[in-house]
Amino acid sequence: MRDPHHLEHLLNPRSVAVIGASDDPLRIGGRPISYMLKQGFAGRIYPVNPNRDVVQGLKAYASVADLPEAPDVAVVAVPAAATPAVIAALAHRGTGAAILFSAGFAEAGPEGAELQAQAVAAARTHGMRLLGPNSLGIVIPRTGFFGSFVSSVELGMPRPGRVAIVSQSGAYGGHLLSAATAADIGLSAVVMTGNEADLSLGDVLQIVVNDPDTDVIALYSEGIKESAGLIVALQAARRARKPVVMMKVGRSAVGSAAAQSHTASIAGNDAVIDAVLTELGVVRARSTEHMLDIARLATRRIYPAHNSLGAITVSGGAGVIISDAADDVGLPMPEMPQPAQDKLKALLPFASPRNPVDTTAQFLNEMSLIGQFLDTMVGEGGYQSILGFFTYTGGAPSIAPHLRKQLKVVRERYPDRLFVLCIQASREQIRGYEEDGFCVFEDPTRAVVAIAAMGQFGRAFAVKDRLPVPTLKAVTLPGRAPTEAQAKALLAQAGIASAPERACASADAAVAAAQEMGFPVVLKILSPDIVHKSEIGGVLLGVSTPDAVREGFATLMGRARAAVPHASLEGVLVAKQLDGGVECILGIQQDPVFGPVALFGLGGIFVEVMKDVVLHRCPFGVDVAEEMIRSIQGAPLLLGARGKPPVDMAALASMLSRLSAFAHAAGPGLGSIDLNPVLALPAGQGAFAVDAVIEIKPVPTA
Amino acid sequence: MRDPHHLEHLLNPRSVAVIGASDDPLRIGGRPISYMLKQGFAGRIYPVNPNRDVVQGLKAYASVADLPEAPDVAVVAVPAAATPAVIAALAHRGTGAAILFSAGFAEAGPEGAELQAQAVAAARTHGMRLLGPNSLGIVIPRTGFFGSFVSSVELGMPRPGRVAIVSQSGAYGGHLLSAATAADIGLSAVVMTGNEADLSLGDVLQIVVNDPDTDVIALYSEGIKESAGLIVALQAARRARKPVVMMKVGRSAVGSAAAQSHTASIAGNDAVIDAVLTELGVVRARSTEHMLDIARLATRRIYPAHNSLGAITVSGGAGVIISDAADDVGLPMPEMPQPAQDKLKALLPFASPRNPVDTTAQFLNEMSLIGQFLDTMVGEGGYQSILGFFTYTGGAPSIAPHLRKQLKVVRERYPDRLFVLCIQASREQIRGYEEDGFCVFEDPTRAVVAIAAMGQFGRAFAVKDRLPVPTLKAVTLPGRAPTEAQAKALLAQAGIASAPERACASADAAVAAAQEMGFPVVLKILSPDIVHKSEIGGVLLGVSTPDAVREGFATLMGRARAAVPHASLEGVLVAKQLDGGVECILGIQQDPVFGPVALFGLGGIFVEVMKDVVLHRCPFGVDVAEEMIRSIQGAPLLLGARGKPPVDMAALASMLSRLSAFAHAAGPGLGSIDLNPVLALPAGQGAFAVDAVIEIKPVPTA
Repeated sequence: MRDPHHLEHLLNPRSVAVIGASDDPLRIGGRPISYMLKQGFAGRIYPVNPNRDVVQGLKAYASVADLPEAPDVAVVAVPAAATPAVIAALAHRGTGAAILFSAGFAEAGPEGAELQAQAVAAARTHGMRLLGPNSLGIVIPRTGFFGSFVSSVELGMPRPGRVAIVSQSGAYGGHLLSAATAADIGLSAVVMTGNEADLSLGDVLQIVVNDPDTDVIALYSEGIKESAGLIVALQAARRARKPVVMMKVGRSAVGSAAAQSHTASIAGNDAVIDAVLTELGVVRARSTEHMLDIARLATRRIYPAHNSLGAITVSGGAGVIISDAADDVGLPMPEMPQPAQDKLKALLPFASPRNPVDTTAQFLNEMSLIGQFLDTMVGEGGYQSILGFFTYTGGAPSIAPHLRKQLKVVRERYPDRLFVLCIQASREQIRGYEEDGFCVFEDPTRAVVAIAAMGQFGRAFAVKDRLPVPTLKAVTLPGRAPTEAQAKALLAQAGIASAPERACASADAAVAAAQEMGFPVVLKILSPDIVHKSEIGGVLLGVSTPDAVREGFATLMGRARAAVPHASLEGVLVAKQLDGGVECILGIQQDPVFGPVALFGLGGIFVEVMKDVVLHRCPFGVDVAEEMIRSIQGAPLLLGARGKPPVDMAALASMLSRLSAFAHAAGPGLGSIDLNPVLALPAGQGAFAVDAVIEIKPVPTA
Repeated sequence: MRDPHHLEHLLNPRSVAVIGASDDPLRIGGRPISYMLKQGFAGRIYPVNPNRDVVQGLKAYASVADLPEAPDVAVVAVPAAATPAVIAALAHRGTGAAILFSAGFAEAGPEGAELQAQAVAAARTHGMRLLGPNSLGIVIPRTGFFGSFVSSVELGMPRPGRVAIVSQSGAYGGHLLSAATAADIGLSAVVMTGNEADLSLGDVLQIVVNDPDTDVIALYSEGIKESAGLIVALQAARRARKPVVMMKVGRSAVGSAAAQSHTASIAGNDAVIDAVLTELGVVRARSTEHMLDIARLATRRIYPAHNSLGAITVSGGAGVIISDAADDVGLPMPEMPQPAQDKLKALLPFASPRNPVDTTAQFLNEMSLIGQFLDTMVGEGGYQSILGFFTYTGGAPSIAPHLRKQLKVVRERYPDRLFVLCIQASREQIRGYEEDGFCVFEDPTRAVVAIAAMGQFGRAFAVKDRLPVPTLKAVTLPGRAPTEAQAKALLAQAGIASAPERACASADAAVAAAQEMGFPVVLKILSPDIVHKSEIGGVLLGVSTPDAVREGFATLMGRARAAVPHASLEGVLVAKQLDGGVECILGIQQDPVFGPVALFGLGGIFVEVMKDVVLHRCPFGVDVAEEMIRSIQGAPLLLGARGKPPVDMAALASMLSRLSAFAHAAGPGLGSIDLNPVLALPAGQGAFAVDAVIEIKPVPTA
């Protein structure tokens, strides 16, 4: 943010001007005033309307110039064409920030874009910030500040709380607001960013990260326009231990049209977003419910770095459902220690004491069992998270009060643990349990998924400093795509090893090179005009004799001449044929939002057919590289499956890390890199790029 | 079912006796009477209690013998030890069926098991059927019949409807009942099967399939004890076009201890259940909410065999969420025809008319737009399923009535389409939309998942008769594991081809065989005592000369002697080495519940590391086999990926189908079959088992 001090009052204005104020509480210029009056907003409200002295009972002002003070925030609800002048007037008065409701700007075409640019320019002259245009604004339930015309509050006002919702979409932001209200989730702020002409998603995120009333952030995004600010804000959220759960929609609409290199088309842009969010400790939600479930549980502010689940149920079936769900999301459910199991068996012979612990319906006959069971589980089982499935017994009038009492005692004894209940009860009963320190879900599967997310946050918050990125010399890319040999030479400067090879302009030179390296060798056509050699039959494998080298030289030159008549042919590359390793692919693609992204996968079918790849934003150190390599589904093949020796992980991870540093250093002129295959040899023997393709992107001259 | 005529009144009894009736409406023997009285059950209720003349205001009887008539159903709430005598008395009177509440039977140990066996025997003498013991019984909301002591109804009585819940678990059945009630799902019947001493899950399923008041069945299972009856009932449900959505829990607790053969350990039992449910058109739910969502939507009785989704939203973001979800579940969202798009654009220039269609908030200014848009989508887009996302506008007092009116007109015009709405509204408002023929969800993702399930049902209901299973001669298994050659000979009788090979007792014979087949050949040690040849180095590939054959013979005999000193060695197998095909694995494993199951996957790492396999219950025809083969993730490798010719699908499918028929015919003595690899050669050249291992299971003598 350029001027954060101007934004301190965006969420908590002392004074709000409404430009285009309406006396009709259902009009866009009327709703904010009506809502603020209804919710008892304590700040000063200044309606601006040239035609009225009074608006909704408040003194109105004819123009911005007539306002008695510069407002902290102005809400602008005038037509697009009138907006730049209003913005100029507000900025001139020294207004901190303006929220622009109107549509008809950049989203509507070139004329609107021009108006939008004028508005931004007018604001910047005096350091005023803009939210929007085309924004549904800001709602702060705690203070009753409604810089918004959202109509979903007709169904019920949101209650104050600690979750901030930041949404790019107004309509979906309104949906989230009312879904959160229906789910009884307390909100600190709801901010809808609209066109993001000035304040970006990252800027707004930073504002709520800084907001002392916000503990948890739910982020809804349809398209990330600017990544640097967002990344900085997400890093700040992680440092502040404020969990971010994000719904980035458009998973299926992969930007395949924009995919340039082979690897890019496999991975798709959405996989890049996944990789970046994982890197930054953001939990990605797959649905609205998923997002709100996680946000709700996160308000408990318990994020176990080493999460584990203990479950106690009154139904064996529920225990199985919980176990299934925990297995699906990788949440461990360790067995209870044997002495603790014996203790529970002694209390109740019918019980299953392993974990999930099943008390059976027997607990109804002796309510104190629940307290004893729960205490034993938490104290002796050591679980970081505890899920109690009590279903309708939690709400049944004949049982619930006793149950609540039992549970509360244990809850208070272990304040650092995450306690979740699955019960069916009235909203008032549920609020009672929540006051006691429990988070309540109806569905056990959803509860488990949310509990697992708390562990993801905990692990993200606990991540130690990463190893440094390898330091490279400055990378200077050639003006056009290098030949394979040039590409390898360029990469060699970054410490990326290729299979020993030599460029040979004649058959004699090729024979000599092969004899020096030792047979068998590989022959590859050498030409700056032929990038994809294998497509023209330009590669010969397993060439085993001097005569075969000579013959191969002629064959390749002939094929190349036939396939690409005007190609400049520089001879062949003679390379030592390496055997006994595992073929991998290392690549770089340029993401339009996040810049260079590294890809790792196993060779051939694993990437093309099985789509078994991992991505990471560049650059990164060897620790991250090794985590990437170990994370693919086919990793066992690198670690010694099927009787093969494990590969040289250190060399492979170093290569991947160096490739990421190279791509980062190369800048925007780099199109893509494809090291395919890289041969990872057994431990101690290294990893070598067998082929290397670097594509150069024409950089528009500024 | 042995005696279905005795069961016609199980769900609809004209008279109900309650044995162990209590005057206390909270006791197990009191709740059924209390609930029936409260809900106005119109049948005759006979409390049986030797100590009271009146129970809860009803005349009580001292014993079963004193009852004025044989009741259609008896509810038995006496201790386990007293149960067999009560059952005998009831059966003797000619009671149709008894529901046994009490625990303390087979689930409690050997004594209980003995009591359970006595009860079953006593009932069978007179053809009476038993539900339970350890059953929470039956609830029929329509009639107020409560053969149940379920306490979840304290939170609210279920409303009558068309969904039957069948649950093995009582406690979880109660949870489902109250979750369905909270979700306002009408129920035709809730039946909890308990120990299934007599009536099995399949029997009860058959009863609700036959029930004219049930359209949709939600099935909750913790373990399938008997598969034949269940399969017959599921087939009957499909024929009756009654969709079954099933939650089979214990997904993660794969019976790995029971895994015998290599392939079994990879696939696990849960994958078998998945395969069987898919085969029978059952949709498997992953959570309670998932199950109830599907059941609720299924009550609309619209199951499109060729499902497609048209979405109309008031938020572009919601359209993206819907598209993401549809992509996840494979539900197509074809684009609107261009003329229809032009029409919508003419109506509203801001609209996105492709599909999802976004009206933007503009529709609020002109409500008739919704009707016109929707009509155009359904009529000209031709979508089988339509999802309208209206969020809080569907409930907002200033908008909802107009919206409902617009929607209703279109709904009535297209009665054969599935219409779903995502709105936030009061229960009363939602019921209004539901009466108009819409199904209402709050969350768009959940709506899409449920819509996709309707297509799964539609496809299952539309499945034509399958091709017949290949007819085989009777299969006679040897008493012990056959050698590879014997196994191949056995399989050859079933039409399963192996690579040409010959058993050779001497080096000379081996050389002669190799010369006749043509080099190169494969040599494999031949011994009934060595099943896993490659583990002892008992296989030589690419043997190219007569001398090498001679040398190889000696090598293999030597290795075998060293590795398994007492093995009976019969020489070597000489096989033609086949090249240029794709390696596959075909296998058979015995599932303890479903019998022989066929497995198909690609060779090597694809099965072992990538777990890319498909299973199917045996036997099946070539059509099913081909569908299996095409369904694996790696299928492109068989269909011509990476420049290879497509394999001989007809031969491969025929082999798989014949293998399934062989396994079925072989009976329970078959342990497993492992054809690994099978080489699928290019089209027209066949598919050949290169290795074959048949394991024999000791069958206990009866």
